[in-house]
Amino acid sequence: MQNIFFTPGPAQIYPTVPTHIHKFMSTGLASISHRSSQYKEIHKHAVEQLQKAFDLPEECTVFFGGSATQFWQTLTQNLVENTSFHLVNGVFSKNFYDTVKQLGKSPVKYEVALGQGFDMDSIVVPDEAEIITLAVNETSTGVYTDPAKVYKLKQKYPTKLLLLDVVSVFPYCDFNWDFVDGFYFSVQKGMGLPAGLGVCVVNQKCIDKANSLNEKGISTGSYNSFVKIYKKAREYQTNETPNVMGIYLLGKVLEDMNTIGMKKIRDLTDQKAKLLYDFVDKSTQFTAFVEPKWRSPTVATINCPNPKQVIEKLKEKKIIIGSGYGDLKETQVRIALFPATSVADVEMLIAELGNI
Amino acid sequence: MQNIFFTPGPAQIYPTVPTHIHKFMSTGLASISHRSSQYKEIHKHAVEQLQKAFDLPEECTVFFGGSATQFWQTLTQNLVENTSFHLVNGVFSKNFYDTVKQLGKSPVKYEVALGQGFDMDSIVVPDEAEIITLAVNETSTGVYTDPAKVYKLKQKYPTKLLLLDVVSVFPYCDFNWDFVDGFYFSVQKGMGLPAGLGVCVVNQKCIDKANSLNEKGISTGSYNSFVKIYKKAREYQTNETPNVMGIYLLGKVLEDMNTIGMKKIRDLTDQKAKLLYDFVDKSTQFTAFVEPKWRSPTVATINCPNPKQVIEKLKEKKIIIGSGYGDLKETQVRIALFPATSVADVEMLIAELGNI
Repeated sequence: MQNIFFTPGPAQIYPTVPTHIHKFMSTGLASISHRSSQYKEIHKHAVEQLQKAFDLPEECTVFFGGSATQFWQTLTQNLVENTSFHLVNGVFSKNFYDTVKQLGKSPVKYEVALGQGFDMDSIVVPDEAEIITLAVNETSTGVYTDPAKVYKLKQKYPTKLLLLDVVSVFPYCDFNWDFVDGFYFSVQKGMGLPAGLGVCVVNQKCIDKANSLNEKGISTGSYNSFVKIYKKAREYQTNETPNVMGIYLLGKVLEDMNTIGMKKIRDLTDQKAKLLYDFVDKSTQFTAFVEPKWRSPTVATINCPNPKQVIEKLKEKKIIIGSGYGDLKETQVRIALFPATSVADVEMLIAELGNI
Repeated sequence: MQNIFFTPGPAQIYPTVPTHIHKFMSTGLASISHRSSQYKEIHKHAVEQLQKAFDLPEECTVFFGGSATQFWQTLTQNLVENTSFHLVNGVFSKNFYDTVKQLGKSPVKYEVALGQGFDMDSIVVPDEAEIITLAVNETSTGVYTDPAKVYKLKQKYPTKLLLLDVVSVFPYCDFNWDFVDGFYFSVQKGMGLPAGLGVCVVNQKCIDKANSLNEKGISTGSYNSFVKIYKKAREYQTNETPNVMGIYLLGKVLEDMNTIGMKKIRDLTDQKAKLLYDFVDKSTQFTAFVEPKWRSPTVATINCPNPKQVIEKLKEKKIIIGSGYGDLKETQVRIALFPATSVADVEMLIAELGNI
């Protein structure tokens, strides 16, 4: 038996991936020019499957990069002249704030304790903020903030661009494009692909903002400037040589998921999360780190007396789970419930947790 | 028969790659954490094979990113406070100059005509320049400037950091670390790997420069700041989730090449280049675009009356060559001679060129 990974990324590989990789390699696609019509078809296919899965409006542009991390810099350079506003509840949501600071601009944060989500009604966004950022799933703590909650904030501040980090909750997450201006993720989590590709989707307002900064003589970056890469992206190409295999696999696995249906994918995720949290809530040795209203359906953080021992015991059974993030390593484990693992897999995991 | 690619990148896949990919996927390496000791071993292996192939001093640090293109921005942010100096002889060498400009700093260029190399004796580098950049192989025109030539410039200007773009001449190129401060490449060319990984190697002076800019309060970037990523890189890790498969394949294929011996790899490249240029020089319908002293051993640019027809005729024989770059598409073809193709492959190509 092979290891099965419930880690929050890199994660369990989606079952169809090895076959898709074999096809990619054996048909010579690894050698094709990124300027060829064959490449454009691969790129277009990935974009179309994304559009299908998330009802993306035609005005949305899809950009590819090496990782989601890179997009913090890209989004800052393209969308922030001076000030940004960040909802911070863990390491990853804070990283966007830190990036803006490192690039010499002025971020403002609204921070809550680890394990908490946000009460949107009480949040005041400064007038000068140009963007609002939220990590829908804070991977470090397993807190999920339903995007629908942040739409209220967007309604109150309609001219500010709302950007969602959906890194560890893609493709579970869903969007209402009346309120969202952009989102980004990487493929080694919910998509179950090998790491090395980040995806960023933005609407026309983001492109317009980058153009207006550029016209003011403010740098929007170089290889990652929307001013520069927008045209190529609309023609299903990239300026730099992209991760062709990653883009190919993204399209193929999204197609596989679309065949199953995104609603079904979400329902199965909810089912797996319910099984796991129900077990934890009844357990005498495990407790959920996050209160029910903020619990992530895709990354569960679970307190236990000896996390290292839990991880080792499961490893003996070929089950790999994640450690807590940073200091939380000492008191908790993290269990991802991405589409690559089945309900039966989660039932087996729960049985083994019960045996510890 | 499968297509054989003599394209300048993405290019022919190195023969051992499919086996390495199979091993990577079937042993679960696509799912391992980038914080695990297993990952560190993969990362360390790639660095060690690079060290072995190029006699890298221990002080050199290896950074991984999504593409070589990204490193123009990274190197600018980390190493240029105000002014850079660029030897420009085509699109790719000019891209570095453009990047510095796009980031709001002041680049200076010394430009020669397409198809030309540089007479280093006549070049005056401005006092204020902090870096000197050279594309050892200008991929757009097939001009090769032996790094040994630019060492003279470094001797004249020892405090300026010399950065070499070796994108389409890696791993043929070699370095004298008394003169070189950094180099970068991507893996879809001479390494014969799937696209999606860039590699940048810098010495301690580059790290020191980034630290000194940072201390002055000048932004050195975010996810790509040497100040931030140096420590992790020395521990064989990355800050962002990297292209683990790409790094694994880089280490494995470099190991394969080291087993053959880098001298042998270079000799075979020279042999293939001699065969091709000898054929072209004797031909009545083909002529080399570049004069002998600047001819690239890895990317040959060849003038011909009807390049599109040449490309199509060879395609019928399952031989894929590249078009000229940009406007040169109308008058020339490009043929790459990377390690993934053998002397016999090049002989077959020449025979087919002779039949046209």
